Amino acid sequence: MSAEIVTIGTEILHGLVRDTNSERIVQQLASIGVEVLYKTTVGDEAARMGDALRTAAHRAGVVVVTGGLGATPDDLTRKAIATVFRQRLVLDEIVLDRIRARFRARGVDMPAINESQALVPKGAKIIENPRGLAPGLHLALGQSEFFFLPGVPAEADAMMEQYVVPYLRAGRAGPTLARRVVRTIGISESALAERFQPVEVEEPMVKVGYLPHTSGVDITLAAASPDQAWLVDAIERCERRIRELAGDHVYGDGDITLSAAVGALLASQKLTIATAESFTGGGLGARITETPGASRYFLGGIVAYSNRAKQELLGVKATTLERHGAVSAETAEEMATGARKQFDASLALSSTGIAGPDGGSEEKPVGLVYLGIATSKGARSARFVLGGNRDEITARATSYALDMARRHLAGGKR
Amino acid sequence: MSAEIVTIGTEILHGLVRDTNSERIVQQLASIGVEVLYKTTVGDEAARMGDALRTAAHRAGVVVVTGGLGATPDDLTRKAIATVFRQRLVLDEIVLDRIRARFRARGVDMPAINESQALVPKGAKIIENPRGLAPGLHLALGQSEFFFLPGVPAEADAMMEQYVVPYLRAGRAGPTLARRVVRTIGISESALAERFQPVEVEEPMVKVGYLPHTSGVDITLAAASPDQAWLVDAIERCERRIRELAGDHVYGDGDITLSAAVGALLASQKLTIATAESFTGGGLGARITETPGASRYFLGGIVAYSNRAKQELLGVKATTLERHGAVSAETAEEMATGARKQFDASLALSSTGIAGPDGGSEEKPVGLVYLGIATSKGARSARFVLGGNRDEITARATSYALDMARRHLAGGKR
Repeated sequence: MSAEIVTIGTEILHGLVRDTNSERIVQQLASIGVEVLYKTTVGDEAARMGDALRTAAHRAGVVVVTGGLGATPDDLTRKAIATVFRQRLVLDEIVLDRIRARFRARGVDMPAINESQALVPKGAKIIENPRGLAPGLHLALGQSEFFFLPGVPAEADAMMEQYVVPYLRAGRAGPTLARRVVRTIGISESALAERFQPVEVEEPMVKVGYLPHTSGVDITLAAASPDQAWLVDAIERCERRIRELAGDHVYGDGDITLSAAVGALLASQKLTIATAESFTGGGLGARITETPGASRYFLGGIVAYSNRAKQELLGVKATTLERHGAVSAETAEEMATGARKQFDASLALSSTGIAGPDGGSEEKPVGLVYLGIATSKGARSARFVLGGNRDEITARATSYALDMARRHLAGGKR
Repeated sequence: MSAEIVTIGTEILHGLVRDTNSERIVQQLASIGVEVLYKTTVGDEAARMGDALRTAAHRAGVVVVTGGLGATPDDLTRKAIATVFRQRLVLDEIVLDRIRARFRARGVDMPAINESQALVPKGAKIIENPRGLAPGLHLALGQSEFFFLPGVPAEADAMMEQYVVPYLRAGRAGPTLARRVVRTIGISESALAERFQPVEVEEPMVKVGYLPHTSGVDITLAAASPDQAWLVDAIERCERRIRELAGDHVYGDGDITLSAAVGALLASQKLTIATAESFTGGGLGARITETPGASRYFLGGIVAYSNRAKQELLGVKATTLERHGAVSAETAEEMATGARKQFDASLALSSTGIAGPDGGSEEKPVGLVYLGIATSKGARSARFVLGGNRDEITARATSYALDMARRHLAGGKR
């Protein structure tokens, strides 16, 4: 069974409000094997809402519509339903009593405007709203089941759980979906795809997807089957193979962040870390501390944006800055060594580079970055030329710095 | 002229990745009077993509499609175009040369897999991609103009600015939309709405909206009219009034960030700034340096996550930590004073607090934050109890710290 979500609201269409409902509804439907194939967003305008409902009826067996059930003049879902389903709206006395009772419970008289929320298209089943005023509506059109829910996330969520999910589950016993995410860094999307070519032959039923971002490339595995045992088996076999082929570029799976992966290695080896940052401005420390419990291993950092701070707080030599410049392998290594000493840490990471948009030269272009790592064995550094705008260059650099720590720690070295 | 946005990507459909492209595209099209009426999201599956494209062709004059132009096997937009537009894909040698040149510039051979990105439907115009590999495509279907752009936000953004917006602007002269954003911090959405009640009466044609986030509340003003002169006048009159009523909570308009607003004040007064951070972990420094040219005023910072670092690097007294704790007004003030001295800066900001989810107590709950500021006149601090999760508490704290600097600098004090 396939589904479409229709989201109603001009603010959502214009991106002023984030649509969190549909993310949740996708998960709720997936849990009973109903896959969402389309998501449509439309503003508060009755004719266009009608058009979106008709389109959905043609291509999905289940249609979940959120929004437009409130009491103000821009709430037009009931009107659109009346037109599309060719049903008159009638005042439902039971619904009206329930709304009145809710107002009474708050010690307030029901404003006249709320009466409109008791208007129900003939033939519609009422979906009770345990958390708010507007009831939901359940109607059929051709082969499709329509569920209309309020736009308030807590209300839509409760009505999905209490009505829509049990209703759909009762009517079916179809295929289940399985999904896995494997997270990598240090290898490109196309290099991964080349490595994974054999998997496409070995596991034709598992769909492999790629999602590149500033923390590397996520690999998504997805499969559907009515045979639950086969499904679990296939997706696990595929994940093992993917991990094997991606090798040490894999830093985790599911929701784990690179910061949490590094944190777990530090905590399990009882080691500490410190940072010395130039152009990332504190962003590397911020990445490390985004993981709860980072105080177990993160001691602190020095943001040495000026050359003077690099010398005075990190002990970078004046001759190093003169000869090689602030953006150089030598400076990165001395910064890391300085931070490791200053905080008495097991290891330290450093960053120096040019985030742009200005400040680049032919010899040292925007995107040129040196990342350093200092351990008990001494310091080393790596050179990168990163693409993207200022934010992306900074974000990628902090990812690669974390990855240097990860690879060092995963190698078991101190 | 009306538009539809079609977003391609299973990850976006499933809510794993946030679709930031379409928010931006709505704004870009609005700036030339093209209103987006529908937004459809569809997974990486060629038949359903084709269906979404056909539906869009029926109901919109302009269709902007993002995603699915990469080189991996889950990138199926070209295939869907070939089917829907009934055009063969041909290898475009010019595009191929450009892709090869980009790989050469990075000192890498082009993987064979990337050749697919030079496959172009016959009759399509090429939209150059100044920031990446995949070119965009421009085709017509019936009465509709289709623009296919990559899913990477920076690439889609640049191609909208350089090709789509100028192309559409040249072809039309209808009613114009005007939009303004006024940015505030330190006052709630509902307090702003109460202050602005007179504006709703004075300017009934201008729609006032509110957009709260971790840097305060943005106020959006929007109006539409074929009369350009009236429109400019009305929106400017309204903006003046809004600024007057919001007072010193306004830190700027349009796209300006709080970081850039503080940076401009520092630069114009030729002052310097440094930071002393505890629980924000470097995030405050990262915020300051997200503004290009921050090296003119930002000297650096100390991330003192451990108490030892607070004492040794910032000179916080052991007795202060013992008596008042690390999360206290006294510690925040001594941290700021220490950073100001350490970097010899005109002013310094500090943060100490509990970001959670653990570490809170009845006396010092999660969300308790002290922010400090040190100037030539001495140090002071402010106490906040912030809501939200770990990320939100951290983001709000860095915003309020920047706002302390802004209010200090705007007051003309040193």
